[in-house]
Amino acid sequence: MPVNLLAPEASALAPIAGVELGVARAGIRKAGRIDTLVMRFAPGTRAAGVFTRNRFCAAPVRVCREHLAATGGRLRALVVNTGNANAGTGARGLADARRTCEQLAGLLDVAVDEVLPFSTGVILEPLPMDRLEGALAPAIADLASGNWAQAAAAIMTTDTVPKAVSRSGRTEAGSFAVTGMAKGAGMIRPNMATMLAFIATDAAIAPALLTKWVREAADASFNRITVDGDTSTNDSLVLAASGAGELALTDESSPGARQLREAVIEVAVTLAQAIVRDGEGATKFITVAVEGAGNADEAEAVAYAIAHSPLVKTAFFASDPNLGRLLCAIGYAGIEDLDVDRVDVWLDDVHVATAGGVHPDYREADGQRVMKQAEITIRVALGRGSSATTVWTCDLSHDYVSINADYRS
Amino acid sequence: MPVNLLAPEASALAPIAGVELGVARAGIRKAGRIDTLVMRFAPGTRAAGVFTRNRFCAAPVRVCREHLAATGGRLRALVVNTGNANAGTGARGLADARRTCEQLAGLLDVAVDEVLPFSTGVILEPLPMDRLEGALAPAIADLASGNWAQAAAAIMTTDTVPKAVSRSGRTEAGSFAVTGMAKGAGMIRPNMATMLAFIATDAAIAPALLTKWVREAADASFNRITVDGDTSTNDSLVLAASGAGELALTDESSPGARQLREAVIEVAVTLAQAIVRDGEGATKFITVAVEGAGNADEAEAVAYAIAHSPLVKTAFFASDPNLGRLLCAIGYAGIEDLDVDRVDVWLDDVHVATAGGVHPDYREADGQRVMKQAEITIRVALGRGSSATTVWTCDLSHDYVSINADYRS
Repeated sequence: MPVNLLAPEASALAPIAGVELGVARAGIRKAGRIDTLVMRFAPGTRAAGVFTRNRFCAAPVRVCREHLAATGGRLRALVVNTGNANAGTGARGLADARRTCEQLAGLLDVAVDEVLPFSTGVILEPLPMDRLEGALAPAIADLASGNWAQAAAAIMTTDTVPKAVSRSGRTEAGSFAVTGMAKGAGMIRPNMATMLAFIATDAAIAPALLTKWVREAADASFNRITVDGDTSTNDSLVLAASGAGELALTDESSPGARQLREAVIEVAVTLAQAIVRDGEGATKFITVAVEGAGNADEAEAVAYAIAHSPLVKTAFFASDPNLGRLLCAIGYAGIEDLDVDRVDVWLDDVHVATAGGVHPDYREADGQRVMKQAEITIRVALGRGSSATTVWTCDLSHDYVSINADYRS
Repeated sequence: MPVNLLAPEASALAPIAGVELGVARAGIRKAGRIDTLVMRFAPGTRAAGVFTRNRFCAAPVRVCREHLAATGGRLRALVVNTGNANAGTGARGLADARRTCEQLAGLLDVAVDEVLPFSTGVILEPLPMDRLEGALAPAIADLASGNWAQAAAAIMTTDTVPKAVSRSGRTEAGSFAVTGMAKGAGMIRPNMATMLAFIATDAAIAPALLTKWVREAADASFNRITVDGDTSTNDSLVLAASGAGELALTDESSPGARQLREAVIEVAVTLAQAIVRDGEGATKFITVAVEGAGNADEAEAVAYAIAHSPLVKTAFFASDPNLGRLLCAIGYAGIEDLDVDRVDVWLDDVHVATAGGVHPDYREADGQRVMKQAEITIRVALGRGSSATTVWTCDLSHDYVSINADYRS
């Protein structure tokens, strides 16, 4: 059961001028499943992406990087299949990803390197090319600007809820709209990006600014979440600007830039949190906020030590305030000269630990009250400096084991 | 259900001359439970230890370090309680650990700093001193050299099987015996030592050699296992040499030193593997062997990326050869310039992956056959150099979640 996460209403998702979406059934993993998405972008669209740092990155990730580099970010179409990651597939996988782009480019009459391919699903199995290719024409026939909700559903794997959100605004230079979607529920510990996320705006954005913003958006969102600590082979975030709307930004001082940047980051953060809320087996949405760190690396190390600890995560699943496990995780996060007497820990408003031990006012009933909530903030003050970070994670439940033990069946 | 692990027969555990053990019921966590162990050592006994690097180390760990430093390793007694870790207990915890040593020293008429304290159990709760102190006299009354099996049972927490083993030998310089015990099943990712392990020999061993050997034994055994990646606050390994037997070693060239060193390491490895075999919820014993690494850090990073991956561990629980997860874990282990085309992966004798993808001869049925076994070796060749390492881990099952969700109830 996802934590406070509902499927988006189609009517709440703003169409983006210059962007059309179409879905189809390739039956890549399951017969009859809508599992293929094509997006078409107006001429002049520019895109930038961030991708997984996993060395066994998927073939489509390699092709995405090549194409974006070759065109300087010109984008006319992208294609996504779910059910098969096309990762760990060697030379054949690379040829399959290239061929998918060629096919789609031919059908849409655009250049091959203006097409980006994406895959998600099982690793180490060849992509069933005949099925994927057969779904391209039906997906193109389905292209429409109002299809964001269908698209978000088409790219799901173990997700239980489609993830999409919009923001729009009006600035002195004109109005804008941003709509994004993401998929992902397991193998989630993004490193430079998440599973798959696509965000589009109708503004025109200069390539350098687009590249800067996509990184900033990833750092504020998908780079701050973890479900199970497993960095996927296919993580990709693409931000596309069609230029079909009213805003045209050349740099961050352009009129409207501040508002649009904020909207892009809000969309990215909402999608990233949605991935955690729908994390495999999740019953709790947990915010880990670390402050008072000596530097950003320390803050992140402590936050992820807590967020990755199976013992912490099972305690939250059980609503058991077995909070010594938090101290334990802080203690092994790798800060060699940590003075535990200066560490403070809170669970929401409850001061749990201080001076190397339990806080004198802490009562089990208070911890219990917070642990029973569906959304909980763990706050840690390290007493070393002024760096801080926040990451989002979920608990570890029986369903996580069930989902991943049965993933291929 | 532990994996191929039976409780040791009491008759298979060699008494160690100069070492007596006694157990008692303090009822620290559960009324009537035998939860307290006292060990008494003959005058002249020398010991060395390695302890957790968790910064929130338990109070008894701090006292152990102080006492060993103060005495240069003289040891006359140790006391262990289970049910409460005396960690995250601040100044009070430290006073409690010291007071426990004082009480025992008084009862046994030895110096306070010749006593070492150990605790294991729940973190962040004060040690019930009255109950622990009340159990010291009954434990002393129980002291006998034949009590290793009872002692191994007394120190268990979530362990389902007591863990103890002996080796003995005859050398040109005389015979020797080594007996050790350990406890631990969760919060297992030792860093310099494991939960609690005590190994004793009747040989006399010079302090410098003892210190060297205890580190080597830890590195060969407890530093190579992981259940859940959580480094405990209380990890401790102590190696004690009573000097009551025939061997007397001043350095590694002393007659009998080679054989005794080998026996100590065998005992440590057997105990470390026993912890994994009895890992919380374990149904599989998994050896991860990494070779062809550029250096030791690389080998260890890859081995632990695999051994810690919840996705790998749930796949093994399900006996599902979803082996792309192995490549994924190798890919995110942090080797920035890894050439995935040079990586090979085997599951026992089955060649799974090569050249960035699945091996052409690999058949799902072969992977399935190996995955169904209770003991499995994952072998990874990185093709970068000549460094290698081996770590041991277990799978991740529903029972791990159940055990840790219910730990305090």
